[in-house]
Amino acid sequence: MATTTHLHLPNPIPPRLHASPPARLRASASSLAHPSRLRLAAPRPRPRHGRRAMSVTVRSSLIDPDGGALVDLWAHVLAEGWASPLRGFMREHEYLQSLHFNCIRLPDGAGVVNMSLPIVLAIGDREKEEIGASPDVALQGPDGAVLAILRRVEIYPHNKEERIARTWGTTAPGLPYVDEAIAQAGNWLIGGDLEVIEPIKYNDGLDHYRLSPQQLRNEFDKRGADAVFAFQLRNPVHNGHALLMNDTRRRLLEMGFKNPILLLHPLGGFTKADDVPLPVRMEQHSKVLEDGVLDPETTIVSIFPSPMHYAGPTEVQWHAKARINAGANFYIVGRDPAGMGHPTEKRDLYNPDHGKKVLSMAPGLEKLNILPFKVAAYDTVAKQMAFFDPSRSKDFLFISGTKMRAFAKSGENPPDGFMCPGGWKVLVDYYNSLQTEEAAVATV
Amino acid sequence: MATTTHLHLPNPIPPRLHASPPARLRASASSLAHPSRLRLAAPRPRPRHGRRAMSVTVRSSLIDPDGGALVDLWAHVLAEGWASPLRGFMREHEYLQSLHFNCIRLPDGAGVVNMSLPIVLAIGDREKEEIGASPDVALQGPDGAVLAILRRVEIYPHNKEERIARTWGTTAPGLPYVDEAIAQAGNWLIGGDLEVIEPIKYNDGLDHYRLSPQQLRNEFDKRGADAVFAFQLRNPVHNGHALLMNDTRRRLLEMGFKNPILLLHPLGGFTKADDVPLPVRMEQHSKVLEDGVLDPETTIVSIFPSPMHYAGPTEVQWHAKARINAGANFYIVGRDPAGMGHPTEKRDLYNPDHGKKVLSMAPGLEKLNILPFKVAAYDTVAKQMAFFDPSRSKDFLFISGTKMRAFAKSGENPPDGFMCPGGWKVLVDYYNSLQTEEAAVATV
Repeated sequence: MATTTHLHLPNPIPPRLHASPPARLRASASSLAHPSRLRLAAPRPRPRHGRRAMSVTVRSSLIDPDGGALVDLWAHVLAEGWASPLRGFMREHEYLQSLHFNCIRLPDGAGVVNMSLPIVLAIGDREKEEIGASPDVALQGPDGAVLAILRRVEIYPHNKEERIARTWGTTAPGLPYVDEAIAQAGNWLIGGDLEVIEPIKYNDGLDHYRLSPQQLRNEFDKRGADAVFAFQLRNPVHNGHALLMNDTRRRLLEMGFKNPILLLHPLGGFTKADDVPLPVRMEQHSKVLEDGVLDPETTIVSIFPSPMHYAGPTEVQWHAKARINAGANFYIVGRDPAGMGHPTEKRDLYNPDHGKKVLSMAPGLEKLNILPFKVAAYDTVAKQMAFFDPSRSKDFLFISGTKMRAFAKSGENPPDGFMCPGGWKVLVDYYNSLQTEEAAVATV
Repeated sequence: MATTTHLHLPNPIPPRLHASPPARLRASASSLAHPSRLRLAAPRPRPRHGRRAMSVTVRSSLIDPDGGALVDLWAHVLAEGWASPLRGFMREHEYLQSLHFNCIRLPDGAGVVNMSLPIVLAIGDREKEEIGASPDVALQGPDGAVLAILRRVEIYPHNKEERIARTWGTTAPGLPYVDEAIAQAGNWLIGGDLEVIEPIKYNDGLDHYRLSPQQLRNEFDKRGADAVFAFQLRNPVHNGHALLMNDTRRRLLEMGFKNPILLLHPLGGFTKADDVPLPVRMEQHSKVLEDGVLDPETTIVSIFPSPMHYAGPTEVQWHAKARINAGANFYIVGRDPAGMGHPTEKRDLYNPDHGKKVLSMAPGLEKLNILPFKVAAYDTVAKQMAFFDPSRSKDFLFISGTKMRAFAKSGENPPDGFMCPGGWKVLVDYYNSLQTEEAAVATV
């Protein structure tokens, strides 16, 4: 796997240069075999427009064990400042604080910032040996191009069991992110300041939805927002969601805000196999705006590049914190945010109220305005999604994500008023295409 | 198990009254069956000396599943203020903050206090039902006397898996405290303000060593201490420990303190089966002072009533925080504090450096002065315990706790200068008595 490649690396590197290059990243170590060439160890370059080519020796495939695409996502997340003040993959002091305290102390007694998920890069024994005492490590794309550099690296043990237990509150097998990104990962973590050479693009037709925190802030300014309320989701938008978002806007107007803007912010990174894929969700979201269920004038749809952990109360803090970094000041939190079923027991993995409670007490998020999610359900009398009224509970029908997917898969229509017709069609078409695919595979 | 008993309960209750009553506590619920008698729900009484007897109905055996003696210990810990500002067993908002953040937010933006271990009381389904909507619950001793009252109780789910994973960073079977106090515990936690009716005594001949935080502060004042450095331990004191404590004193004098006082503070609560029992350790500690290894003039020996969790970096915060509450301002931390071997794998459960690192960054402990433990080992040339000198590492012999216990068990003497002879004799006698006991059992 470890092949030695010679390539031309621009140096000094202009950070956050806007261009459109390769997608997936792999990490690669500065080779110890050619110490004289280890010019990556040069002092941190200042941004400038000119580039001077230099020849470096790097080794590829460094972070394959941690799931190439996930590293890519994290590099994207880090480079754009979603995890600010983190400047790169966590060093040990950051990792330990994240794991034990869900927050990181700022220097000079300036308080703490919330940081609930470890944002780390795993490497194996061989890679650790290859890196040796090199201060800097290049992260290489699959085509061999260096996409980022990790500066002043620190390598420390990756106790996976402890990381999983403290992040998820369980070590049961079958946690999607663990299976995808941790189980096979190396026994070391490598932290350092990340310098992404060119902005990360996916070239999947959705890059125009991927606004950085700064771009989002600019957009909020452009629209003259005096309040920004964020809605995190990884599912199609049904009319219950829409009711909630529209009602939130109404409440903010009542509170005296003149122009509250909704950030509809679907998660764009790794999701579990039975979740609806991003392109389908983005199409569905467009229909929801086209059909006028949400007002395009006061809604910004953008993709949040983070991978999904399904880590419940721990993850919801990350979801909120990242949106604050993008300029949101109100965060809508629902039942069991970032939750899922327990992987081996017949119950929710998390207490459905804990997300909201933990978020409301999280260190570093004291100034966040949390908008608790009212429960919406299908009102069979009014034939529309409505806030649940316990005094006539028998009139209400709860349609879970699983039930919704079952409807769409079977081609059965959900009750009228559950979702706008255009949005629903996107889902039905998607599940039809899946079945066609499956049928094709079965007949081969 | 749930027997209904009528008893006379003093009300109002003078908190922290000094007397000498029963030891082990059991919890008992105010009975719903006799709502008119639920006078425990009366407003929080003010301390006063007179007592008015009232008849209440309580049910016993409530907290048997959570290990009677452990509840006793926690009631002791809580009543004396070691866990201040906690006023009793944690309610859910405190529990969640402890579990996720290792600290608890103070009201009115007054910062946070460290609180790394959940201090909770588990009850079962039946007890929950019995308590019903009662605001207050009595905790009953084995002899039927009410020893404490939990006021304005809150009952919430006890997700044992999550509690264990987030506290220990593993859910592997074989964690001593989990086996002892959690595995068989009920599925609910009950929190509330604890009012201990009379101070908890053990009547084991060691109560004079059990000084409360306030009594310790008074003692420090009486001795004119201008610095107090605490040494937590659950093992016999060998000359390496003594070297460290004496060297710390020397360093504090060099720093300009005139009268640094050592708080030698052995843990007195639950320890794992192969640790040396408390009475033996206390006798050993006396010998260490008698033999002049530690200076009795500048040393206070007292018992810390907490049970041992063996939860490494999570627990060391509790160990330090509780000593701050008792007036210590310097805390000595060693290699792998509160650590143990992994219960199912051949490795330390925690990275031996994490305790020190986590403690140094822990929220709410910013003002604590942490004194890192220098590594002491047996210097075979000087024939004494000395700070390890890596330049002549082959001259040093590391004698672990396990090795020390093996020496004492086999009757073999450790190298001269490892421990004072009087202290060593206590250990040898203890292990001899164990072997005599075992032999007696074997021949029966």
